Amino acid sequence: MEYKTEIKVRGYHADFYGHVNNARYLEFFEEDRWAHLESKIDLRKWAGMGLTFLVVNINVNYRRAVPVGETLVVTTRLEKIGNRSVVLKQEILSKESGETAADALITFVITDRSGRAVTMEGEMLAEIEKLR
Amino acid sequence: MEYKTEIKVRGYHADFYGHVNNARYLEFFEEDRWAHLESKIDLRKWAGMGLTFLVVNINVNYRRAVPVGETLVVTTRLEKIGNRSVVLKQEILSKESGETAADALITFVITDRSGRAVTMEGEMLAEIEKLR
Amino acid sequence: MEYKTEIKVRGYHADFYGHVNNARYLEFFEEDRWAHLESKIDLRKWAGMGLTFLVVNINVNYRRAVPVGETLVVTTRLEKIGNRSVVLKQEILSKESGETAADALITFVITDRSGRAVTMEGEMLAEIEKLR
Amino acid sequence: MEYKTEIKVRGYHADFYGHVNNARYLEFFEEDRWAHLESKIDLRKWAGMGLTFLVVNINVNYRRAVPVGETLVVTTRLEKIGNRSVVLKQEILSKESGETAADALITFVITDRSGRAVTMEGEMLAEIEKLR
Repeated sequence: MEYKTEIKVRGYHADFYGHVNNARYLEFFEEDRWAHLESKIDLRKWAGMGLTFLVVNINVNYRRAVPVGETLVVTTRLEKIGNRSVVLKQEILSKESGETAADALITFVITDRSGRAVTMEGEMLAEIEKLR
Repeated sequence: MEYKTEIKVRGYHADFYGHVNNARYLEFFEEDRWAHLESKIDLRKWAGMGLTFLVVNINVNYRRAVPVGETLVVTTRLEKIGNRSVVLKQEILSKESGETAADALITFVITDRSGRAVTMEGEMLAEIEKLR
Repeated sequence: MEYKTEIKVRGYHADFYGHVNNARYLEFFEEDRWAHLESKIDLRKWAGMGLTFLVVNINVNYRRAVPVGETLVVTTRLEKIGNRSVVLKQEILSKESGETAADALITFVITDRSGRAVTMEGEMLAEIEKLR
Repeated sequence: MEYKTEIKVRGYHADFYGHVNNARYLEFFEEDRWAHLESKIDLRKWAGMGLTFLVVNINVNYRRAVPVGETLVVTTRLEKIGNRSVVLKQEILSKESGETAADALITFVITDRSGRAVTMEGEMLAEIEKLR
């Protein structure tokens, strides 16, 4: 499944200072994260097995204020697979100039029905590798 | 239970035009609606009986643009009890001047476990009367 | 300019009850409203003349709860031109079934630099007629 | 000026998974950040001098899922003063248990009218020290 997250910045995305608000950026990242995940992984199957994605850390750099009217592109790729966690690298770029407006490292774990983070091995690891 | 919903308008509440955004007002109304409901009604008991509040119509007038820094007060009172629906009147006022920034009529029904709207009679009606 | 507002409902759009939240629907309507306006009208020119769209009333019916995973289509058309106000009719439909999830009448005025609502006549009326 | 940011978690704060959404947490942090800043610093005077707070990094740990109905307390304190940047430490705690739901390091700079980050020295430094 191909997908592309493009967002035209509207007045309601911006705050008083005329910039896209910090919290709104997290929604843009979240939108593309789900689109990326579902383009690579059968999330329905995962849910059926009681597996849940749980974000445990977000580290976001706000690099450039984005004016209303600009179109943004959001990207997601796999950064690192740890023992029990995975790091995604996400970027928000100006469609016109390609300049980075914000980037983020998103660390998540996958919890099973007991709420414990599962180890990245075997079939699970193979699935996560698809996120590259 | 006494409560009061006061909100100091921050930069992140306002949009590009420096006004509190239309969608944000609905959150201010929702905040006070829940505070009002739980101050009058045992919502836990209702949930235990499978009863759910379902908003079916919101009719909101935006009367005055509110600048960042102003403090708003939100109020809720019972407007009308219909056969199977209830109307609340909500207002957002400037704390300083008392001027109305927005007002709304909120129509909701109460659904049972089958998803059907229950009739406002007997014990249910008595509970809803408390919302005055 | 052709455009189409399609939104795949994500977990972050839904609230605790698993439905798209009331306030979030207003953002979906707002998204399509701006797309519709800018596809028909030169908003930059309007802004240069000091003309601003100001929503004065939103009357929204919530008709059907929308589950996460469904794709929604938002539409906007001109409903009525008044003396100093304009009414748009907006709908949010299920892409799959075509069923209406929510619809709304949005009343706006156009204010000039003095903050007064302008009369719908002459060139202004011709521009607004394009919104059909 | 004394202040305290307490937030009762409502259904509209939570997402499909019944947790307070990641982006919503940033709004809770932002609310307390502004309350803290304006309790210590004359923001109006700063604005008059053309000085603006600009968040450049947010690093947030999501430590515990918060159920609807719980009351949260948000706190802010000065963590570190750098050469041209300042780090605040913010926490979101359960009011009942005192457990941490989320914590964050927020790095901001102060920009002047030219958009450049000012150096933390002299009067500026003295003002920022008040944020402890």
